[in-house]
Amino acid sequence: MTIAIEPIAFVRNSRKDPIDDHWGEIVSEVELAEGVPGESLDGIDSFSHVEIIYYFHRSEKTVTGSEHPRENPAWPRVGIFAQRKKDRPNHVGTAFANLVRREGRKLVVANLDAIDGTPVIDIKPVMAEYLPKGKVSEPLWTSELMAHYW
Amino acid sequence: MTIAIEPIAFVRNSRKDPIDDHWGEIVSEVELAEGVPGESLDGIDSFSHVEIIYYFHRSEKTVTGSEHPRENPAWPRVGIFAQRKKDRPNHVGTAFANLVRREGRKLVVANLDAIDGTPVIDIKPVMAEYLPKGKVSEPLWTSELMAHYW
Repeated sequence: MTIAIEPIAFVRNSRKDPIDDHWGEIVSEVELAEGVPGESLDGIDSFSHVEIIYYFHRSEKTVTGSEHPRENPAWPRVGIFAQRKKDRPNHVGTAFANLVRREGRKLVVANLDAIDGTPVIDIKPVMAEYLPKGKVSEPLWTSELMAHYW
Repeated sequence: MTIAIEPIAFVRNSRKDPIDDHWGEIVSEVELAEGVPGESLDGIDSFSHVEIIYYFHRSEKTVTGSEHPRENPAWPRVGIFAQRKKDRPNHVGTAFANLVRREGRKLVVANLDAIDGTPVIDIKPVMAEYLPKGKVSEPLWTSELMAHYW
């Protein structure tokens, strides 16, 4: 079974190459692809945040088993589905971006960790009822890995 | 540009047909697809929650413009990217599930709003640093829509 996905938008920003950290300073535009009606964004500005599902188009390999996050042996070797590395089966990323404003066929967003040219698979409004239920807990290595991410 | 996606797992649960509400009572298994190594899940049980990206395989239409959520005229007509309806371009859904336990090549999860047989595109661990930054706000209609969802 193969699922065929057509990008519905593309990311535009100042980050041209995959870099791991300091995403908080990047402001991005998410512009609808040709053929997608602008009406598809109507009402989105009544939400503070949008979920962006995107394709890691610059990933050049696929890890299917386990690996050290960022290839750093100081962190435990874990399965690809226990980390968020881009080199994963299907190369799909997700992010919760702050919606700054809508401008016609574009969304201006902050806190989107996707580089310039990234194909967008979907945009969803963030509803509090869809966020994790109960306390979120995670291992210690993730806080070291995320220390300079934003 | 077409992106080819191969399911990495499938959902198994008691909900055989698409129904909108009362997902909170459903416990699901997410079982790795043939060919995906079990090692890909190693370390996942040190996280409380997993993000499941999946394919709405029973959606039979695609809305590209705007529509009333759940076709209910009491709620405003909004663009497909301002709502989470399954009948959307690319038919991709996302959920934050509570990880109950890992059993070899299976995850047992709660609060996954996907029916039996749903193809899974990706599994990611939930890290607090990836959750929305700042207060999440949304329009009034979403709280009515979500009243019986879980």
